[in-house]
Amino acid sequence: MIKVSSIFILFFVALNLPMIQLDNNHSTEYQKNSLMIEHQDIERVEPANWWVGFKNPELQLLVKHPNISGAIPKIKYPGVSVKKVHNADSPNYLFVDLIIDKSAKAGKFNIVFKLKDGSEKIQTYELKSRTKPADKYVGFNSSDVIYLITPDRFSNGEPSNDIHENLLEKTIDRSDNYARHGGDIKGITNHLDYIHDMGFTAIWPCPLLTNDMPSGSYHGYAMTDFYEIDPRFGTMTEYLELADKARAKGMKLIMDQVANHCGLEHWWMKDLPFKDWVNYQKNFEENLDSWDKKSTITSNHRRTSNQDIYSSKKDKEEMSDGWFVSGMPDLNQRNPFMAKYIIQNSIWWIETAGLGGIRQDTYPYSDKDFMSLWAGAIMEQYPNFSIVGEEWSYNPLIVGYWQKGAKNRDGYQSNLKSPMDFPLQRNIVNALNESENWDTGLVKMYEGLANDFHYAKPKDLMIFPDNHDMSRIFTQLKEDVLNTKAALGYILTLPRIPQIYYGTEILMNDTANPGDHGLIRTDFPGGWDGDSVNAFTGEGLTDTQKDMQRFVSKMLNYRKNSKAIHDGKTLHFAPIDGVYTLFRIIEGETVVVIVNKNTEPITVNLNRYDEIGLNGKTLKNIITNETFTWEDNITLTSKGITLFTTKAN
Amino acid sequence: MIKVSSIFILFFVALNLPMIQLDNNHSTEYQKNSLMIEHQDIERVEPANWWVGFKNPELQLLVKHPNISGAIPKIKYPGVSVKKVHNADSPNYLFVDLIIDKSAKAGKFNIVFKLKDGSEKIQTYELKSRTKPADKYVGFNSSDVIYLITPDRFSNGEPSNDIHENLLEKTIDRSDNYARHGGDIKGITNHLDYIHDMGFTAIWPCPLLTNDMPSGSYHGYAMTDFYEIDPRFGTMTEYLELADKARAKGMKLIMDQVANHCGLEHWWMKDLPFKDWVNYQKNFEENLDSWDKKSTITSNHRRTSNQDIYSSKKDKEEMSDGWFVSGMPDLNQRNPFMAKYIIQNSIWWIETAGLGGIRQDTYPYSDKDFMSLWAGAIMEQYPNFSIVGEEWSYNPLIVGYWQKGAKNRDGYQSNLKSPMDFPLQRNIVNALNESENWDTGLVKMYEGLANDFHYAKPKDLMIFPDNHDMSRIFTQLKEDVLNTKAALGYILTLPRIPQIYYGTEILMNDTANPGDHGLIRTDFPGGWDGDSVNAFTGEGLTDTQKDMQRFVSKMLNYRKNSKAIHDGKTLHFAPIDGVYTLFRIIEGETVVVIVNKNTEPITVNLNRYDEIGLNGKTLKNIITNETFTWEDNITLTSKGITLFTTKAN
Repeated sequence: MIKVSSIFILFFVALNLPMIQLDNNHSTEYQKNSLMIEHQDIERVEPANWWVGFKNPELQLLVKHPNISGAIPKIKYPGVSVKKVHNADSPNYLFVDLIIDKSAKAGKFNIVFKLKDGSEKIQTYELKSRTKPADKYVGFNSSDVIYLITPDRFSNGEPSNDIHENLLEKTIDRSDNYARHGGDIKGITNHLDYIHDMGFTAIWPCPLLTNDMPSGSYHGYAMTDFYEIDPRFGTMTEYLELADKARAKGMKLIMDQVANHCGLEHWWMKDLPFKDWVNYQKNFEENLDSWDKKSTITSNHRRTSNQDIYSSKKDKEEMSDGWFVSGMPDLNQRNPFMAKYIIQNSIWWIETAGLGGIRQDTYPYSDKDFMSLWAGAIMEQYPNFSIVGEEWSYNPLIVGYWQKGAKNRDGYQSNLKSPMDFPLQRNIVNALNESENWDTGLVKMYEGLANDFHYAKPKDLMIFPDNHDMSRIFTQLKEDVLNTKAALGYILTLPRIPQIYYGTEILMNDTANPGDHGLIRTDFPGGWDGDSVNAFTGEGLTDTQKDMQRFVSKMLNYRKNSKAIHDGKTLHFAPIDGVYTLFRIIEGETVVVIVNKNTEPITVNLNRYDEIGLNGKTLKNIITNETFTWEDNITLTSKGITLFTTKAN
Repeated sequence: MIKVSSIFILFFVALNLPMIQLDNNHSTEYQKNSLMIEHQDIERVEPANWWVGFKNPELQLLVKHPNISGAIPKIKYPGVSVKKVHNADSPNYLFVDLIIDKSAKAGKFNIVFKLKDGSEKIQTYELKSRTKPADKYVGFNSSDVIYLITPDRFSNGEPSNDIHENLLEKTIDRSDNYARHGGDIKGITNHLDYIHDMGFTAIWPCPLLTNDMPSGSYHGYAMTDFYEIDPRFGTMTEYLELADKARAKGMKLIMDQVANHCGLEHWWMKDLPFKDWVNYQKNFEENLDSWDKKSTITSNHRRTSNQDIYSSKKDKEEMSDGWFVSGMPDLNQRNPFMAKYIIQNSIWWIETAGLGGIRQDTYPYSDKDFMSLWAGAIMEQYPNFSIVGEEWSYNPLIVGYWQKGAKNRDGYQSNLKSPMDFPLQRNIVNALNESENWDTGLVKMYEGLANDFHYAKPKDLMIFPDNHDMSRIFTQLKEDVLNTKAALGYILTLPRIPQIYYGTEILMNDTANPGDHGLIRTDFPGGWDGDSVNAFTGEGLTDTQKDMQRFVSKMLNYRKNSKAIHDGKTLHFAPIDGVYTLFRIIEGETVVVIVNKNTEPITVNLNRYDEIGLNGKTLKNIITNETFTWEDNITLTSKGITLFTTKAN
């Protein structure tokens, strides 16, 4: 929200000076209409600004002000017109449809609202110029590796913002896994060099928007304002600084968004615009005084009802309309004003921060037709953008259903580029944990990857060893370092978009209480002044941690320039005797991935791989730089992963 | 093979009498050309006869005779012409392409072969009339329930055929699970009333063709002659009697065929027509003297290579071309003569026995393009026919891939109506064995069935509690009778084609050594004279066995006339508190299936099911005939399945 004190405005008016745009974060242009006077009479207008030059000329403003219902808005600005005005169920909202046609130029204009009581309220609104063409918003893709960060737990760059008196949760307590720890945007920005040098090319921080919830607000998924950076994470200026500095290093910033729900303390929950703004709203309003888990109609979480041709209406409704948890009201995207609100909010953030992607939370919990519209609206504006959606299913049928281009029998057209590949993640873990048998062990990786025949575009799927909601990979793999390297090495060579959770590179774990969310999101050592261990500098890390950090960094930096991994052909061979082999091949580069489960030395006959055409070639071990000549056989002396490339450097 | 002694023929010739068709099994018509003389000079011609009136006018004869190569065949018969003659690699084979045009009439004619040495051999060949129009060959469908029988283990109807001196395996030993026990075709025919009265509408006996193998020949999957009934199972006459009697009772006979392999003792293995008649043939021929497991190149059994877009050529080749086991040579269906041989063989049996379906063994092991051609050729001739293919995969992606109408990304067009639903079978077992939790127990049935959204035609899938290759359902379910009833009741109400293995109705089990093939295929009690227990009469069965037999019979006989189960809409509700509910609905009939895991009484609120519209209706318990009025709730007092119908009778 742009807030300019009205006294300050009057000062300019009195002097009859040209009005200057005061908020440098939003525009540096002088007003074109130098005589226009800025007004901020209205309590809340969202989006707070918009842009000229979008394909879609429509913009719908949510206007919140006491008794604004029935008001008539007037605009005098070339190329901008009011198309339609909608009253809401609450008297304190107005929805105004604008048309911003091609002739409209960037600039500010006043919207004059004539209220029913005859009074007039004026709100200055800005249309900005777009900073780059729509096709330059290039989203993450298979050439990227994404670093996922829980911002509260990564680094406290600005201790002065740790506690905010106007917000409900005021404490900070690093000894409590479910309290805020003080990590923030500045902490991420401060360590961009580390992230970049490790070899990551994109950052996905968990949500940074205000979560003014009484407790557990650190995770960020209970948003109480969709247009505001949580002050405990920093300011809009700091967020844009992060975006700019990341971009300057060639790194993409991914925003974690939530279309399905908000936090119970969201500002609109005190005065809901429509009777159907959130699902089961009546139940909420009737139980306000005694609101707790018992009075919530929560989702049945039976996500298969999205696809199931036999699903009862009851199951479908409870799934999609039920609240995710009692503290997260379920947004009703079938309300067309809500739908537009969410779509515009996403576009606003892309355009404002120059995003390199969106991660959409709880994808299957929202109305699925809406999700298709939402993703479609974004992709239409930004054809090279990327969206990854969370559907936590181990069933490739379900994951595949959500991907753009899926041949769904019900005709559902998803516009989602990147579903998350939970099925393959689990296969990799099982493959490494299980002993080798006909149908257990490495065959799980082999057959798991073989499911790619089903996906519309396998290399657009996001793969990960773990994330902020699941046990750390080191814990999942029973603290077996060699298997952890195998999982990471395999993930980083797959035809996928890999995502790695902060701290995985130094073997962070939740072994003390596997799956505990607070524990999974442990503080990154060195992120706080006075930390005895500092993973950014390596100080205090064990040799094993340093070795893993080097391994990840070697792989990431190799991957960064590996066309074979980004776009190459994939070929693999069924596991035999505990050895599974994968090849990534492009003109001039072949990457060889050998995963070995044997603890005793084993000699592998290389004739089996003749079709790859490596015979007589010299390969380089990506991790150790040692060379190897591909001839009759190879002896693997250690369990774990071996990674070769035919590229000399 | 029709064998008529040449002396006998000469007798007719000498008398100049009209030639009479002597083999009543094959035709009752007199010869039209009364002056034609029958000859059987040739060692082997396959197919031994053919029919007029097929859509496809082509027929390819395999002619085997010493030094037949290079011979020129001549035919003088209206509407029949030799299109092309092919020599093979062996001098002892000739392949003759005939065109049987629309004008051809049923009858016999001589094929005169002029051999390279100048000699002449004459073979009489018959074209029969088809007994019914092609569209009257109606295959099994969702209105059927199939009884799967291992013929050697069901009933010994004709003890005189138990041992056959000309065949390699001569012993019979009921105490040896892997020896022959003497069951036969007559045994099945004798008990058609039992099968029919139980409520089954189709019979699938495991293969009945000659398996002249030195041991383990009882299972039937190592065929040594694709045109001959194994004499230990009976005669062609007896097979056709079984077909006729089954048909008379409205039951469909399904033939178990094997396109992938033959038995090592197949007659052609001694003199292979082409160098590429079987896969890895060179390896076989070079190791003939020391043939054992070590010299076999067996399949890698990595069936996912059929779909896998990353599969190495090596994996694909080993999968498809490798022998199933060392005693089963892998047929090379890429050899066009082999391909035609297999297709014609299938059509020959359909037409000869009036089959009601084919079960195709080891479906994914054959060349997959051939399998599509094969199934397509059959379905083109018999548009209402049915084929079920065995792909033992727990992955619905793989199972779905093989079904006709699948939207496969590689463009593969299968012509297979019915893949087997191994994934749902396993889900049912897990659902009943596991304790109830968020992601275990009944949810496995619910989510397993929800995968139907993926299939081209779910109700064409074959579902089963068990089969001849897997542990008996009673053993899989840890000998829990109520869970076994639940599994069967659920299977019998699904939108599927159910198959039940003989003896499941009396709780036959392999608990002593779960998964042991010989034990799974235990003798059906009462199938042998002197058996102390007789499941056909009920004599000696325990009360629990009798109760299960009644349960199965009640369900089957209800299902037989249940349009709701055959063709109705399916609706189900996610499990809550250990209770899962499925509805099958058609105009005038609703079937209610309640699966309950609670051992203590539980009261279920029926308001949840309002959308079904049962309120106030009186339902009948399908098993007990008790009535129940659908109002506010139902109390389930016992664990297990409850089955209601709205039909009065």
